[in-house]
Amino acid sequence: MTREQQLADTLRALYTQSDEQLRAQYRRSLSFQDGMFDRWERARRLGFGAGASIYNSALVLGEVSVGRETWVGPGTILDGSAAPLVIGEFCSISAGVHLYTHDTLQWALSGGIAAKRSGAVNIGDCVYIGPQSIVVRGVSIGRQCVVAANSFVHHSVEPRTVVAGNPARRVGRVVGEGAEVRVELTSPGERAGLDLPLASHE
Amino acid sequence: MTREQQLADTLRALYTQSDEQLRAQYRRSLSFQDGMFDRWERARRLGFGAGASIYNSALVLGEVSVGRETWVGPGTILDGSAAPLVIGEFCSISAGVHLYTHDTLQWALSGGIAAKRSGAVNIGDCVYIGPQSIVVRGVSIGRQCVVAANSFVHHSVEPRTVVAGNPARRVGRVVGEGAEVRVELTSPGERAGLDLPLASHE
Amino acid sequence: MTREQQLADTLRALYTQSDEQLRAQYRRSLSFQDGMFDRWERARRLGFGAGASIYNSALVLGEVSVGRETWVGPGTILDGSAAPLVIGEFCSISAGVHLYTHDTLQWALSGGIAAKRSGAVNIGDCVYIGPQSIVVRGVSIGRQCVVAANSFVHHSVEPRTVVAGNPARRVGRVVGEGAEVRVELTSPGERAGLDLPLASHE
Repeated sequence: MTREQQLADTLRALYTQSDEQLRAQYRRSLSFQDGMFDRWERARRLGFGAGASIYNSALVLGEVSVGRETWVGPGTILDGSAAPLVIGEFCSISAGVHLYTHDTLQWALSGGIAAKRSGAVNIGDCVYIGPQSIVVRGVSIGRQCVVAANSFVHHSVEPRTVVAGNPARRVGRVVGEGAEVRVELTSPGERAGLDLPLASHE
Repeated sequence: MTREQQLADTLRALYTQSDEQLRAQYRRSLSFQDGMFDRWERARRLGFGAGASIYNSALVLGEVSVGRETWVGPGTILDGSAAPLVIGEFCSISAGVHLYTHDTLQWALSGGIAAKRSGAVNIGDCVYIGPQSIVVRGVSIGRQCVVAANSFVHHSVEPRTVVAGNPARRVGRVVGEGAEVRVELTSPGERAGLDLPLASHE
Repeated sequence: MTREQQLADTLRALYTQSDEQLRAQYRRSLSFQDGMFDRWERARRLGFGAGASIYNSALVLGEVSVGRETWVGPGTILDGSAAPLVIGEFCSISAGVHLYTHDTLQWALSGGIAAKRSGAVNIGDCVYIGPQSIVVRGVSIGRQCVVAANSFVHHSVEPRTVVAGNPARRVGRVVGEGAEVRVELTSPGERAGLDLPLASHE
């Protein structure tokens, strides 16, 4: 048996064992890498705030700052490669969310001649960003905002605002505080688009 | 050479070897973890029905039941963490699909004070859910439905219905059975949105 | 200590070491597999053009051809399993993009009786495809096109065209060449949808 075959066998046994243990203890079955590496340890190593966590499958590029207790889901991209990306505390950065400070549109169109474009991104405290949403260079999102799932955000958002869609538009506001906080829609006609927000937060 | 360097070398040789073998045998080049761990073995271990499969990069949380022959793609999230998630047989759960029984909207807005919200999710038999679509807490999708790619589903769907968009709306129905089954649009105006459905099923 | 525990310990030490090194050298913190395996080496092994790269987390199925200098991001799916998939040079295939030559809609609806549907896909040179966009079987995208983020493309696109949305519609055109290349919107009313294009290209 080669060294590579031995490693493959041990890896498979390790995955089965650790996955069974995770299931027994937390009722979770993760991918190999998300199960093998600790989310809180990585957040500490990256200098995130106390209690923050980030899955192994997330990518963190450049200058990224994250506040305490913020949850960063699997498959996310936090891109501070071209300008600072700042994320507040108690945020839900749901699975598959991409936050970008640059794009390569003109790089591609010009056959590699034109430069990348860039701009800083700021996410306030207590912001919920739904799964698979995308926020682009130059955007600021105020505190206690909601970005519905699958949204595309290319304009800045005032505090306590709810946005949804591609491109994202204002569909409501956040009212109340603490345990009484809730979303209020701007009109009944927009109700269809408003139940959208959601996140994986396990 | 340190133990870590040795492991890195063997891992890279193992990946190259197994990837070349997969390409020669099945014309597929996968990520390290999706190539290393068997999809059918994991499905059996999770108690899924006979012939079901699930990529290693998928996350399975809490109470999740999956019927026979159902295909669960890479990068999917099956979240039964807050309430049961039940998926029927012969379903296509395409790559990047997220099925949620909870959200953390109020958790984030309240700074960690308000509880998560939850609701069971049911997916009937023979349902096609297109890539990167999202289904949220409390939704039931009847048998033989089609959810187009990139959709956001936050209302329940009657059997043999086609839905598309963000938020998802009814755009057609399913007619016929067996090899003659097909999609019928509700109006020509909606034709543009109807060719949508698709899946990776390799 | 078992062999599996030893491997887990060494894997974790290896990840921490190599992640710290990547951060120090390139200001990047990647997932385990995207950090461990070289992007340019995989592209060469898959026969892509000179200077092309592809993250480990990307899936490549069947017959896929990729031109020189093209960048293929993390979490992408290049599906040439049912028909050829051809991608030109200097393209940005952003993170989470799925390009499909088949779908399993009728397979699922028929309970496994009906066949998959298929069609070749062609992407011209110098094309920008934004994050989490989906292109389906039978579609050709001409050279120097822009597909905005989160789009769903199910019709072919003429050269130097900008498309956005779900389903994707024409919202502008590409003018100029080289360092002067830029996007021009078809009308001010569509401006909201036009700033969309972006990509992760690190």
